Amino acid sequence: MIYLDNAATSLRKPDSVVKAVTEALTSLGNASRGAHDSCMNTNRVIYNARGKTAALFNCSKENQVIFTNNSTEALNIAISGTLDPGDHVITTELEHNSVLRPLYRAEKERGVTLSILRSDKKGCIDYTDLEKEIRPETKAIVCTHASNLTGNVIDIKRIGEIASRHNLLFIVDASQTAGSIPINMRESGISLLCFTGHKSMLGPQGTGGLLIEGDIDVRPFKTGGTGVQSYRKEQPMEYPTRLEAGTLNGHGIAGLSAAIDFLNDTGIDKIHKHEIHLADTFYDRIKEIPDLKIYGDMSDRVRCPIVTINIGDMDSGIVADELSYNYGIAVRAGAHCAPLMHKALGTDTQGAVRFSFGYFNTVEECEKAAEAVKEIAERR
Amino acid sequence: MIYLDNAATSLRKPDSVVKAVTEALTSLGNASRGAHDSCMNTNRVIYNARGKTAALFNCSKENQVIFTNNSTEALNIAISGTLDPGDHVITTELEHNSVLRPLYRAEKERGVTLSILRSDKKGCIDYTDLEKEIRPETKAIVCTHASNLTGNVIDIKRIGEIASRHNLLFIVDASQTAGSIPINMRESGISLLCFTGHKSMLGPQGTGGLLIEGDIDVRPFKTGGTGVQSYRKEQPMEYPTRLEAGTLNGHGIAGLSAAIDFLNDTGIDKIHKHEIHLADTFYDRIKEIPDLKIYGDMSDRVRCPIVTINIGDMDSGIVADELSYNYGIAVRAGAHCAPLMHKALGTDTQGAVRFSFGYFNTVEECEKAAEAVKEIAERR
Repeated sequence: MIYLDNAATSLRKPDSVVKAVTEALTSLGNASRGAHDSCMNTNRVIYNARGKTAALFNCSKENQVIFTNNSTEALNIAISGTLDPGDHVITTELEHNSVLRPLYRAEKERGVTLSILRSDKKGCIDYTDLEKEIRPETKAIVCTHASNLTGNVIDIKRIGEIASRHNLLFIVDASQTAGSIPINMRESGISLLCFTGHKSMLGPQGTGGLLIEGDIDVRPFKTGGTGVQSYRKEQPMEYPTRLEAGTLNGHGIAGLSAAIDFLNDTGIDKIHKHEIHLADTFYDRIKEIPDLKIYGDMSDRVRCPIVTINIGDMDSGIVADELSYNYGIAVRAGAHCAPLMHKALGTDTQGAVRFSFGYFNTVEECEKAAEAVKEIAERR
Repeated sequence: MIYLDNAATSLRKPDSVVKAVTEALTSLGNASRGAHDSCMNTNRVIYNARGKTAALFNCSKENQVIFTNNSTEALNIAISGTLDPGDHVITTELEHNSVLRPLYRAEKERGVTLSILRSDKKGCIDYTDLEKEIRPETKAIVCTHASNLTGNVIDIKRIGEIASRHNLLFIVDASQTAGSIPINMRESGISLLCFTGHKSMLGPQGTGGLLIEGDIDVRPFKTGGTGVQSYRKEQPMEYPTRLEAGTLNGHGIAGLSAAIDFLNDTGIDKIHKHEIHLADTFYDRIKEIPDLKIYGDMSDRVRCPIVTINIGDMDSGIVADELSYNYGIAVRAGAHCAPLMHKALGTDTQGAVRFSFGYFNTVEECEKAAEAVKEIAERR
């Protein structure tokens, strides 16, 4: 199988990640729940992982690295934990349902109002439009770092500058970029960063996190055991326990920690360069195919390694099935949990075929995939 | 190290669990997010795990097995998703903070009222008291299957019968029992069962679940991507997607699935018998030590393999440290996230030293632990 669905999850993990999880499964106790060696060992693993995560994204407080099950959980915590009735929020049409649905819910249940920044047909937003949407009651800008559908990357530094100037919270969904494109919370003025461990971070599923920069009060989402302040009726107010009820996924976090080591040792720039080379190789070989639609702004120099297409009016699911059954190529088709982006691109009925490349893919695989697309387009 | 902190997490996992997670880490795609082989494989793993979990606990609908990060998350979903303003809930002093804190929160934020059933000094409740607490506005009984502090097991069948008779929801926290003591949702009238994967289920951390028996509407807790019904603004209403936003911990669930196979192949009765034999061995050798306090109802024939003690007035943390440093024995001391239980036992300042045994412990380890307790008691 040629796996080109890395934007959904990185199928292949570094050997060191697999090893770290395997070792953890035979050695880790319950974090923060005791003082014996195996607990201390777990606490060490998690403490180190917090430090590495904070460093990776340049977050100033290690204890404000909150481990979650995935990016969706981080986004739910960030959005439900900071917005109050009467608040206004700005977001974009590029967003995934993991941003949109928590915002729609805040709109419906908490009296939050919402402005959704339009995207053009290439999936780009107008940054000057964004500033025009700011009102006195605007509390936050919530936006993705990159579209999971087109691979377009948002200039978060530019938005962060706007957010800082207007004293707004800036909540960033880094699901598609963390580990592949450098993110610097302090430089980009990011207040809350949400990431998942299993995509370009190259870590295990069941991991992810929320990083909080500076003094921001985020209400607890889950409540429960914390191993500290057991006699308090409410969740302790100190981070990270405030947002981490129950036993952490220590086994997964051990893998995430090894994944961050891999990213640092290899170099995120090197990883990204290779991934973009793969995407470019594929793109260059398909772009002249007649009647092929390619979505997103392919001219932007900063992109995710994603190339999303349709072949004429062919249903995207049928193209993906042909790729899978006839060529052993795994891609994603249909709707990509980004309903407004599909509407902006005009792909809400056809869906779209997304090729997403990862560090462990090869140029040869991209060439084969391009060849397959050509053949399907010719046969149709 | 002699690991006797299995009630916190089972340090040792069956080899098949480690193998399943390792294999998953090198082969699993993103569940429900595509139609290619690696996705289908993931969907199969998760589908099978749902079926096995439903069968293990005799839940009638496989699609009402919701996978969560841990038991705390399952309890948060169950409690926040079913209680409405004006509802009255009955719980017990045996509860862990993972039950108490979500209930206190519902009391404070949602206008739910709470009755907390008293425990006697042995950590037992009076079942006739329970029925007396039922009022017209009572919506649910929320209770643990076993105290994580004393190991006392609650007669859930008896409570389930009361709940059924009064048409109440019965929410059970099976954190300490799932995998070690048989649980039959239908026979015991359990509406919502919450379990964790990493304790006596012998699975990985980062796994757990909520099982829903019959037609019960549980409000979504997290919202986000579901891979289906992408154009809906709200979380889809069908189980399990209603309560499973974002990418599942497929790697962990593969391990949980293997753990359930191990439980079934070995036999839960056999596992429990061995664990109880270990606890009895330890108990028999320490019970005559002068000035030793042993908590819980040790006469009950159905118990968790937990023996919780204090040595005179010695601080429980010091006892645990001595056990760790001088004998290499890992136990848990201090407060055990069960504040009302500690108060009922009179251990809220001293804490308590909990020895908890698991299937992979040996009789010899229990003998050594008993010897260590004797020596510490004599030396003091």
